Amino acid sequence: MSKKIIAISGSLKKNSYNTTLLNEIKTFVPDLEILSIADLPLFNEDLEANFPPAATALKQKIEAADAVIFATPEYNRSIPGVLKNAIDWASRPWGKNSFAGKQVLVIGASMGPISTALAQYDLKKVMLYLDAHVIGQPEFYLGTAQDKIKDGKIVDENTKNHLVKAVDRLLNL
Amino acid sequence: MSKKIIAISGSLKKNSYNTTLLNEIKTFVPDLEILSIADLPLFNEDLEANFPPAATALKQKIEAADAVIFATPEYNRSIPGVLKNAIDWASRPWGKNSFAGKQVLVIGASMGPISTALAQYDLKKVMLYLDAHVIGQPEFYLGTAQDKIKDGKIVDENTKNHLVKAVDRLLNL
Amino acid sequence: MSKKIIAISGSLKKNSYNTTLLNEIKTFVPDLEILSIADLPLFNEDLEANFPPAATALKQKIEAADAVIFATPEYNRSIPGVLKNAIDWASRPWGKNSFAGKQVLVIGASMGPISTALAQYDLKKVMLYLDAHVIGQPEFYLGTAQDKIKDGKIVDENTKNHLVKAVDRLLNL
Amino acid sequence: MSKKIIAISGSLKKNSYNTTLLNEIKTFVPDLEILSIADLPLFNEDLEANFPPAATALKQKIEAADAVIFATPEYNRSIPGVLKNAIDWASRPWGKNSFAGKQVLVIGASMGPISTALAQYDLKKVMLYLDAHVIGQPEFYLGTAQDKIKDGKIVDENTKNHLVKAVDRLLNL
Repeated sequence: MSKKIIAISGSLKKNSYNTTLLNEIKTFVPDLEILSIADLPLFNEDLEANFPPAATALKQKIEAADAVIFATPEYNRSIPGVLKNAIDWASRPWGKNSFAGKQVLVIGASMGPISTALAQYDLKKVMLYLDAHVIGQPEFYLGTAQDKIKDGKIVDENTKNHLVKAVDRLLNL
Repeated sequence: MSKKIIAISGSLKKNSYNTTLLNEIKTFVPDLEILSIADLPLFNEDLEANFPPAATALKQKIEAADAVIFATPEYNRSIPGVLKNAIDWASRPWGKNSFAGKQVLVIGASMGPISTALAQYDLKKVMLYLDAHVIGQPEFYLGTAQDKIKDGKIVDENTKNHLVKAVDRLLNL
Repeated sequence: MSKKIIAISGSLKKNSYNTTLLNEIKTFVPDLEILSIADLPLFNEDLEANFPPAATALKQKIEAADAVIFATPEYNRSIPGVLKNAIDWASRPWGKNSFAGKQVLVIGASMGPISTALAQYDLKKVMLYLDAHVIGQPEFYLGTAQDKIKDGKIVDENTKNHLVKAVDRLLNL
Repeated sequence: MSKKIIAISGSLKKNSYNTTLLNEIKTFVPDLEILSIADLPLFNEDLEANFPPAATALKQKIEAADAVIFATPEYNRSIPGVLKNAIDWASRPWGKNSFAGKQVLVIGASMGPISTALAQYDLKKVMLYLDAHVIGQPEFYLGTAQDKIKDGKIVDENTKNHLVKAVDRLLNL
């Protein structure tokens, strides 16, 4: 049976380069399900007693999957707050962390040349803590994304090929 | 003229140990203003054109201050998403980062023994990137906070003294 | 066939608490081989043409193993230089990284309460980059080690049990 | 009186791009003293009782300076072991950390595009812990250094200008 893979973009922006990476993956992994994290409230432990339905839905999707792909921008040299907020919800309540045992691939795109390396490694750290099986290589950094993505499509063959290679590692794990 | 200091807790929880640290500081720094980050929307670059009033208000408070104290829990070995979300807003729009030049003290409390060291250093990294003047020493880690805070008050003299010492460094910078 | 495991201590100190952890593991994993990193020169790319024998020997031991256990102190909130130096050698020359595909467990002991969390996660980051399979949970932090190790033996049952549990995860991977 | 600045390269390689950055800085900061870290032994706490002369000399140079510039490559996504080893020595013995109060600028060059961002931030973290005043902006990343440095000289005007700007921040602190 094939692996069930879900994906989360770290950007809520409509024309996000990171969401574009996930859409591209869906062209060769048709069953990929891209989840939204836009409707979650800000995490507050006091809300756990009445766990928000959007957070419950997110947890169920993660738990039903074998693997998770994160495509993340870098905000201020770390994980976007909005993405971390989703992860914080999915890690709760205590003892019910939804990421345990999942295979995790982290990729990222940015307009600058540094290209999300610091955000990606902070995210990998968090995923290790949450007992995911984090893929180390190949790394995937798309820098100066504005040159390689046009109208919501990757127009650079090297980028496409490298993306296929990164996802293949996950598929073959 | 005295230094204008604001403070932000990384936890939205009502009985947060981190918010308690800030309340304690207010007993000896009466002008301290503790800001709320509970009403911010999730960051989305598409919203920048109509910058949310809560984010504008946060930016104005930070810009009017000389120094910022962060009291942060550690969520999943990094910065709480909710706190990072507030920082992401305050860092935007591009070129209008509100933290530039501010003096920054980072402290944190937790129930476990590791005590927020990883969250604090991720936050210090972000603040360096945002061109703040980050205080390195003394570090302030309150571990097993449940033993040292009761009914919203610090009941441990060593903890109180160490907190005074950390804030003194900021006051005398 | 049983798993071949090697171990490296991040401290060269004779009575190192971290080396003690490895000696303790050897009592229940008798085949464990503890490697020395004391005789390596400081890494210098110019020396690669005449690869130092001590570095070659280290690489061969790692390559012949299935898994590596690192017991590391924290020096200045990161990996000890001496340990990173050994890893830098073992990662070279380019394309001949000895850690690829190895299972890796990271543990650590310290006299303070923070207990090597920052060093351990920096090390896990490096190992992910080197394409190791890094174990996320359980984490193993031995704080205030001076209370739990006497005369080179662990004298605290909880510590022993937790160490067994961490190593079991590696053995059963 | 002018500021006394010393510099340390994280690479021992003869034709290091990072050492080249320091040599370039010396053309406009003639008093810059570039220290060697090649003769230090591997750090071992047991050697502290007879502190190695090379480590004592390093500590004296740092203590006599107002500011330190680090030019560092990135080895395996973190600080080179050889550089961290030098810092570990200079931080010891306990209570005699030589970096306390020093102004610190971190820059780095690499052949790849990621360009030492992870090594630089790990180093900034260590320097914060050691109570240095770490400069956050401007960051200085020289990627694809082989295109911008020829025969030991920077041949790219943008790179030169950005380097001057980074050092100016230190000079004017």
